[in-house]
Amino acid sequence: MAVSVTPTIGVFDSGFGGLTVLRALTQRMPQARFVFVGDTARLPYGSKSRRTVARYAAESAQFLVREQGAQFLVIACNTASALALDAIEEAVAGAVAAPVLGVIEPGAQAARAASQTGDVLVIATDATVQSHAYAAACGALGLRAMEKACPLLVPLVEEGWTEHPVTEEVVRVYLGELLAEAEARGMNADTLVLGCTHYPLLKAVIERVLESLSGPGNPDRGNSIGSAAGRSMRVIDSAESTAEAAARLFDGQGLAQKRAAPETEIRCFATDSVEKFERLGSRFLGRPVGKVELLDLGG
Amino acid sequence: MAVSVTPTIGVFDSGFGGLTVLRALTQRMPQARFVFVGDTARLPYGSKSRRTVARYAAESAQFLVREQGAQFLVIACNTASALALDAIEEAVAGAVAAPVLGVIEPGAQAARAASQTGDVLVIATDATVQSHAYAAACGALGLRAMEKACPLLVPLVEEGWTEHPVTEEVVRVYLGELLAEAEARGMNADTLVLGCTHYPLLKAVIERVLESLSGPGNPDRGNSIGSAAGRSMRVIDSAESTAEAAARLFDGQGLAQKRAAPETEIRCFATDSVEKFERLGSRFLGRPVGKVELLDLGG
Repeated sequence: MAVSVTPTIGVFDSGFGGLTVLRALTQRMPQARFVFVGDTARLPYGSKSRRTVARYAAESAQFLVREQGAQFLVIACNTASALALDAIEEAVAGAVAAPVLGVIEPGAQAARAASQTGDVLVIATDATVQSHAYAAACGALGLRAMEKACPLLVPLVEEGWTEHPVTEEVVRVYLGELLAEAEARGMNADTLVLGCTHYPLLKAVIERVLESLSGPGNPDRGNSIGSAAGRSMRVIDSAESTAEAAARLFDGQGLAQKRAAPETEIRCFATDSVEKFERLGSRFLGRPVGKVELLDLGG
Repeated sequence: MAVSVTPTIGVFDSGFGGLTVLRALTQRMPQARFVFVGDTARLPYGSKSRRTVARYAAESAQFLVREQGAQFLVIACNTASALALDAIEEAVAGAVAAPVLGVIEPGAQAARAASQTGDVLVIATDATVQSHAYAAACGALGLRAMEKACPLLVPLVEEGWTEHPVTEEVVRVYLGELLAEAEARGMNADTLVLGCTHYPLLKAVIERVLESLSGPGNPDRGNSIGSAAGRSMRVIDSAESTAEAAARLFDGQGLAQKRAAPETEIRCFATDSVEKFERLGSRFLGRPVGKVELLDLGG
């Protein structure tokens, strides 16, 4: 049953990479209102303890629910999704209209739907790989997953080099190593999960490199990946998967209807570096982020 | 006059890049004892306010002086040197045997000594460039400086790609842009300052690229840089410059004498990510960092 007022979806990330998830959400649910918080003052979350991440994420979640009236929450941050989903759920218990949604479970679900062999590759930041959250989520769905950290990809995206030859070469090195290691372990992977909210901006270059690496007779790689994964390696964009899962989960709230309004309402907060957020955020969101408001959540 | 006990030099950084400064210090003053603190739990400092950086840096400085008995302090962190040298000086007033030394002033001094034209280029992180600390320090010495942020270089060093073709290409892009812009502004630069503690690990590739960019008849660049800066562009490693300045400043304390001890004593603390510090630190220090101790400075 549709709610009477415009539903508000709160979206949280430690930085602004989660704007790729926000973008996918606005495309699926254009008639909702969105409020985004990037906890830029306290990033990176990846090097912090579970307790600290849980406290930080819960503070942002409470701000979204209590002060911004969010009825739905999407945690567009891999580290917080991996370490703090329970704590966030607890912090907003009774105040939201659906379970809090993270980015990892939807990515794993999409991988299961896409994979025919059951063997899945995941690229992510160092912190996400060390948490083994994707391997665990994939394993719980009966998939065998191999994860690889690609620490240079976030800085390359933030430098704006999404179509730069250097980026293509870096992607080629990382994916070449990943495919070779998967092959050495006897995996027959047919699906690659982009396990970082920055990576959707690299989807085109990643698909191009995968095609060249897996093509027959490729001198870099021998031929077994060519015959195993071939040109059909599916790339799972976890921002897209999360938006799909959100549309299903939040269904019955009138969120999937199209409306006439020319542009979905989005309000963005950051706890620091508002200027960088405004400058880089538009590339992630696919439209101007507008004025980003400074939010003080304390130490 | 030499002090009676082995003098202790405290070295502070927000991360572990400052180990390049520690390395240069141990080479200049091998008979001292060194204690290093990397405030890895709270990095990056670059996006934080002056007040926060001052508070964090002062806490580490007090730990080094009060709990580790440091009589001398070197701030091997560009952001803390730019924003918090006064606050650190105040926090340890009366408890150290010489002024607290940062990394920026020695880099600027070395540039003045090296430059014949008075025009200097500086490469650094985004945060250091935005502080304009090098431009100010160079300006105070009568030099004209142009700064350029090179955000990909730290991640490339941390990935261990110090001799990778990708890194050479990235350096070529950054330096090519910098030289072209300096030329467009009518500068006649003959000196390049490495304004980040990670960059000494890239000194070889930077010198190689400078030579190829400034060579006569280079198709990438026209020829005016070739005739202006030629092959004689001097590269200032601010880790080296800081160690030289420290040896002069701490002189008269018996610190410059050689001693028979086979290896200088170094003790390392980090506020988080001890594993990453141990894994990557040795590359920066040029010898094993050994066991890194976890230090809790709170919030």
